Amino acid sequence: MPTRYEVIGVEGLPEIAPGIDLSPLIVEAARRQGTPLAAGDLLVVSQKIVSKAEGRLVRLDQIRPSARAAALAVEIDRDPRLVEVILGETRRIVRQAKGVLIVETHHGWICANAGVDQSNVDPDTACLLPVDSDASARGLRRRLAELTGLTLAVIIADTFGRPWREGLVNVAVGLAGFEPIVSYLGETDPAGHVLQATILAVADELASAAEPVMGKLDRIPVVIIRGARWTPAEADSRPLLRDPSRDLFR
Amino acid sequence: MPTRYEVIGVEGLPEIAPGIDLSPLIVEAARRQGTPLAAGDLLVVSQKIVSKAEGRLVRLDQIRPSARAAALAVEIDRDPRLVEVILGETRRIVRQAKGVLIVETHHGWICANAGVDQSNVDPDTACLLPVDSDASARGLRRRLAELTGLTLAVIIADTFGRPWREGLVNVAVGLAGFEPIVSYLGETDPAGHVLQATILAVADELASAAEPVMGKLDRIPVVIIRGARWTPAEADSRPLLRDPSRDLFR
Repeated sequence: MPTRYEVIGVEGLPEIAPGIDLSPLIVEAARRQGTPLAAGDLLVVSQKIVSKAEGRLVRLDQIRPSARAAALAVEIDRDPRLVEVILGETRRIVRQAKGVLIVETHHGWICANAGVDQSNVDPDTACLLPVDSDASARGLRRRLAELTGLTLAVIIADTFGRPWREGLVNVAVGLAGFEPIVSYLGETDPAGHVLQATILAVADELASAAEPVMGKLDRIPVVIIRGARWTPAEADSRPLLRDPSRDLFR
Repeated sequence: MPTRYEVIGVEGLPEIAPGIDLSPLIVEAARRQGTPLAAGDLLVVSQKIVSKAEGRLVRLDQIRPSARAAALAVEIDRDPRLVEVILGETRRIVRQAKGVLIVETHHGWICANAGVDQSNVDPDTACLLPVDSDASARGLRRRLAELTGLTLAVIIADTFGRPWREGLVNVAVGLAGFEPIVSYLGETDPAGHVLQATILAVADELASAAEPVMGKLDRIPVVIIRGARWTPAEADSRPLLRDPSRDLFR
């Protein structure tokens, strides 16, 4: 039997309004399309629908930009109200350039615009990352267990840019139920070498695996990863954050 | 029918020696395990076996470090012979620290040690990236077409670290037969917004999707991605290289 796994998009979820309980919608949509959730599944859920369900939407016409946001907006040529929203999510600006603001979020992610974006939401509305995506993932996992009796793993994912390489890739911004990092420290390879410090960000790899079926238009905001190996654990996304003391690109 | 694809490890390849023709081994191994190559498959092939087949192995006892390599080796506390090999693959040093050398390769990839590594090879041997991984991917694709009559897509993949996030992820270092970037420029989302400049590095996402079945110990150096959407094209990996003028983290 070859080692294999499957990546299955969950279609037919309705438009998500603030306050909605996502889990029964996910369970029902997966069942309706003939791929009900099963033991061992890992779910990758788009940050966007989690944020919508949690009401993390801001109407720009209700935002008064601070003097700092107004000045920065001029420098980078962006809407000052949007800059104000981004700064509210920001611990530190890492880089700025025309049209671009790379920041560290309060959680510690380094990404464009603190994850704030305006696609797939009403005009003049901005969508923010969940306040605590790990808590969101834990909540989904708990509720899915109540509804199905299954102990699943959950990733909340968003598309982030990277230095040096073009194109966004889907990465984990929150997770529950599994070890996000697989470590090969100290194992020996077939040639008898001890492998040194080889750690793989399996949570990010599985988030990336989900994206090609999601599509950027968010019509498929939930993906089932079925049959992949992952290590059950009461873990969150913090092991994916590089300690600043070990980071050469702050 | 839900949108789905499958990730299938190809097991049972022999140890790869320089000069070996990989393609018939891949075709045969996939057939033997009951998952013969099929139309629409995209193959993710570990850089390591491609490099071995191409003889990109260097015995360190035959390397005489230059004065520059010897001095740098002291600064970063690494084997001067290994540093000499790395510098031969290097266009520019991006960062250096104790034990760490982040460089830009002649191809343009920015990664640790120019992709040179010592796992899964004989003691005192270093394995280099293929001279031209895109040419390697094209060669594999052509030979696989001769053997099977199938027009496949091919990714040569290696695990790279990233700034800000812990853990390596598998990325494309060479490819053939498909567009590595999917662009949503100008499309409208369900809310009627025109999406701006949303480009996704699908080649890197599919390389990452393959890794969880490969394992770092390289016992499964070939993975079939079956059923994923990709756009056929005579393309290579260059669209994944960010132009230095657009890169804020050089």
